[in-house]
Amino acid sequence: MHHVVIVGGGFAGLNGAKLLGKSKSVAVTLIDRENYHLFQPLLYQVAMAALSPADIASPIRSILSEYHNVKVLLGEVVGVDPRRNRLFADIGEYNYDYLILACGVRHSYFGRENWEKWAPGLKTIEQALEIRRRVLTAFERAERDMAANQAGERLTFIIVGGGPTGVELAGAIGEMCRFTLARDFRRIDPISTRIILLEAGERILPSFSVKLAGRAARDLVNLGVEVKTSSKVTDINAEGVAIGTEKIRADTVLWAAGIRAPALARKLGGELDAQGRIIVEPDLSLHYYPNIFVAGDLAHFAHQTGEPLPGLAPVALQQGRSIAKNIMRELADQPRRNFIYRDKGQVATIGRGRAVVDIGKMKFGGFFAWLVWLIVHIYYLTGFKNRLSVTLNWGWSFLTFRRGARLIVSKEWRFYHRSGENG
Amino acid sequence: MHHVVIVGGGFAGLNGAKLLGKSKSVAVTLIDRENYHLFQPLLYQVAMAALSPADIASPIRSILSEYHNVKVLLGEVVGVDPRRNRLFADIGEYNYDYLILACGVRHSYFGRENWEKWAPGLKTIEQALEIRRRVLTAFERAERDMAANQAGERLTFIIVGGGPTGVELAGAIGEMCRFTLARDFRRIDPISTRIILLEAGERILPSFSVKLAGRAARDLVNLGVEVKTSSKVTDINAEGVAIGTEKIRADTVLWAAGIRAPALARKLGGELDAQGRIIVEPDLSLHYYPNIFVAGDLAHFAHQTGEPLPGLAPVALQQGRSIAKNIMRELADQPRRNFIYRDKGQVATIGRGRAVVDIGKMKFGGFFAWLVWLIVHIYYLTGFKNRLSVTLNWGWSFLTFRRGARLIVSKEWRFYHRSGENG
Repeated sequence: MHHVVIVGGGFAGLNGAKLLGKSKSVAVTLIDRENYHLFQPLLYQVAMAALSPADIASPIRSILSEYHNVKVLLGEVVGVDPRRNRLFADIGEYNYDYLILACGVRHSYFGRENWEKWAPGLKTIEQALEIRRRVLTAFERAERDMAANQAGERLTFIIVGGGPTGVELAGAIGEMCRFTLARDFRRIDPISTRIILLEAGERILPSFSVKLAGRAARDLVNLGVEVKTSSKVTDINAEGVAIGTEKIRADTVLWAAGIRAPALARKLGGELDAQGRIIVEPDLSLHYYPNIFVAGDLAHFAHQTGEPLPGLAPVALQQGRSIAKNIMRELADQPRRNFIYRDKGQVATIGRGRAVVDIGKMKFGGFFAWLVWLIVHIYYLTGFKNRLSVTLNWGWSFLTFRRGARLIVSKEWRFYHRSGENG
Repeated sequence: MHHVVIVGGGFAGLNGAKLLGKSKSVAVTLIDRENYHLFQPLLYQVAMAALSPADIASPIRSILSEYHNVKVLLGEVVGVDPRRNRLFADIGEYNYDYLILACGVRHSYFGRENWEKWAPGLKTIEQALEIRRRVLTAFERAERDMAANQAGERLTFIIVGGGPTGVELAGAIGEMCRFTLARDFRRIDPISTRIILLEAGERILPSFSVKLAGRAARDLVNLGVEVKTSSKVTDINAEGVAIGTEKIRADTVLWAAGIRAPALARKLGGELDAQGRIIVEPDLSLHYYPNIFVAGDLAHFAHQTGEPLPGLAPVALQQGRSIAKNIMRELADQPRRNFIYRDKGQVATIGRGRAVVDIGKMKFGGFFAWLVWLIVHIYYLTGFKNRLSVTLNWGWSFLTFRRGARLIVSKEWRFYHRSGENG
């Protein structure tokens, strides 16, 4: 019985585990530091109070419960000794015959990690709830402080980064301000909100075609978003954002730019790219350790197009499956096959009822693109119940312009803080 | 235009605001320290991972958006000067003509507030998520530590307090262990879980009839819960719980006993009961300040039965409405009327498909009681969308024995902690 250890229960790890779970010749251990698989493409909807965390996350243990050779552990991997085939986690040490590293990446602040305090990123449920808290609290504060003449910066939202996440966040904030919150506030006019999308490069959505990106930019402007390209952020602090000498005061700044790989990547001794991602062989293994594979956002795979593949769910999903198949081939004395990414296209939404779709030669925008986005995302959601729940929540939001999850859930420490009061 | 200030957006405050919102002669300001109204009777379902926070909470601002004379503010009230008709909050000062205090109570640890760290209570969404985190994490740790022979205390759950909340929590944990988790864990047998319900008094559910309480106790035992009455907790620490000289080791202790009123209650100079609740006149006003009313859990109203009314949603709801009507009567030069509580009965569930119902002369248990409980709770949930979502989530859990929200969402500080790593 060969032991396969998978680090990370994202799209890559989970889909690899499912395939290996059907094999009789391997035992699988999947380690993740969360107990759930997260449907990351919809995380911004949690941040924007349209969905609840449970709508887009399912316990890994449940998803894999039918595979009796797969063991799921909650723990954080801290190191690996590739020469001894040994993995170190906070919950113990594990020997492996094959190792699949699929633990993703986190946000990079380009060496200015202190910016994170002022501009949280969007990779985890905790971060999504933090962003939700900040955006909704900004409106509550503005309602309170109208007299104090501070409503301007209270209701200025800056999103740094014009990739799909930044565009979807900006669109969702724009829509929320225009429609959802407009009728609920008495003293402020949520339409007066200022939403600014900052992009260092020449245009937003660089991975989409010029035409589609232009359409997305127009859709954003129609939602009241200011799109500022060639605008490199030089500082973020309590006041707001600086772009060279230009300063924009803002209470809420969100970060959707830059990634970096976790420290674990450096411990394998292999070649890394500028973001710290691991440069892999054509079969997604490491050059010096062919029994170690890397999949998903953590892998730098440039054999197909010369450029590294983007950090998208379909890439991770296909890589996880490819690795699982190669392990099973090898155990059946068959040769490995190189990974080939089959491009399923890209979609990004801009608020309610608008999107851009880029599938091979098909490039289009508008309401039909949004329907495509909707169907694709519901289809890929893990679990029948989540699909139903998300469909219901979206249907509700769409028909009523309301949002189902507009709760400001306090930071956890307030629980202790408050109970410490002598009430 | 008379100004009515309402402190608290629970059942009392919200229902008072809705009635006053129909009046043309008052302006209403409702202040709450959360932005949402919480359907507290179902909070234990969030703690037990069956529902999401957004299923049982709605933004106060949305619920009241149609009432244009009602202003909603997010803030914490810190003091009141009843002689000057002035209220002090962290967000400013407010004059009022009428004041309705409906800010509820919190848990009391009978002077042992340090116990809270080891045994969180269940009053807020944050606490519910904390309890969910502890219970699910206990299973994950047990799965990890089987070899270390610690699974016993890992999987011992102690619930302190045999009122409705304690009974519902114990039943829900019992059900979760027996059915939901049983198939998802490989190395531990969730049926071996030990669940202990501790009650200091002679029997559980003292507000129900002896016969019904006995039936609930039997139902609990059938779910694997040990019911220990006449067991007064004398210490809680990292090891577990002490009952006199008896010590029970447990990783997870939950608190469902005892209440105390917030400090604000003392600032009015009126008479308080042992829990710090405000003793009110027959019309729910204060003796020396007839323009101040108290409603809900914070009010000690004993004019009807000699005993203070229990802290239940229907009591709060009826009191909020009664006060609103009296204010409108007074402004129309009509005399006030005394409050009369119309008892709608009590219901408590024990796990899946079992409950006890106590409505006047109707006292029964079993599946039909559970159906009554289900219908009553869905009916009273605020908002069409929440009702649909909760029905869907329950239907899903009931048919599949799964739970929809089994996410261990980390404490917020881990977000900062983790991102502080040099990843």
